Amino acid sequence: MRLTRFTDVALRVLMRLAVAEGAEPPTTREVADTMRVPYTHTAKVVARLQHLGLLDARRGRGGGLTLTTAGHSASIGALVRELEGTDDVVECEGTTPCPLRSGCRLRGALRKAQDAFYASLDPITVADLVTSPTGPLLLGIGSGPPPD
Amino acid sequence: MRLTRFTDVALRVLMRLAVAEGAEPPTTREVADTMRVPYTHTAKVVARLQHLGLLDARRGRGGGLTLTTAGHSASIGALVRELEGTDDVVECEGTTPCPLRSGCRLRGALRKAQDAFYASLDPITVADLVTSPTGPLLLGIGSGPPPD
Repeated sequence: MRLTRFTDVALRVLMRLAVAEGAEPPTTREVADTMRVPYTHTAKVVARLQHLGLLDARRGRGGGLTLTTAGHSASIGALVRELEGTDDVVECEGTTPCPLRSGCRLRGALRKAQDAFYASLDPITVADLVTSPTGPLLLGIGSGPPPD
Repeated sequence: MRLTRFTDVALRVLMRLAVAEGAEPPTTREVADTMRVPYTHTAKVVARLQHLGLLDARRGRGGGLTLTTAGHSASIGALVRELEGTDDVVECEGTTPCPLRSGCRLRGALRKAQDAFYASLDPITVADLVTSPTGPLLLGIGSGPPPD
């Protein structure tokens, strides 16, 4: 069972920004290097999170990325739902649709299981994720070699 | 959020066999064609399900695939856990390990969510999946054009 790389990177970016308060706002490049994810992925994710109102991005000197108030209190369940979309966890439709798709008990069972997955993440906020030990660990890691 | 194609095919094969009682046991080719999945995938899945004791496969004339008693009562949660493995739903380890992996609240939250997903499927058996409307629908579909 896998989430997309896009969701993974989005969660890492939000966690990194959640511990940046009071310090100079990091750039997209700095966040990418710290979280060991490719810059190109990170830039796309930052644009999406900005569009969702979860971060502010300012260009130029003194610019950088900052989490918005909505970003701090954002529900991880709601965010993962938004980024993963509402597709089935197995391929019911698509180029070779499953012949059972219109009356499939498995499809219904998997949708309930998917809902249980998201519901488990609903009460957790971005701010919750960076309480100890994660927050201090995040502040302590340096930039690694760029992964792309 | 996606399960592997392997798990998807395994669930379709088990459902197909669960409605085959009393009729001539279908061959791997027949199951593949009915469920619109490639024969090569299906053959690998059949071997794994046989190894797990969920189906019997007999070669030659009068042979074919039959679900075992264990196969009928198998828990969907247990089966999906077995086939998907215990990997994280995002890439914590791997070639570029996440620097937070040793003390990450997100990792713990995603594991709990994954457990909630499986727990939702635990009480459902293969036999449950083919009660109406799915079972009658399965019996009514013919073989489509082979997908490979």
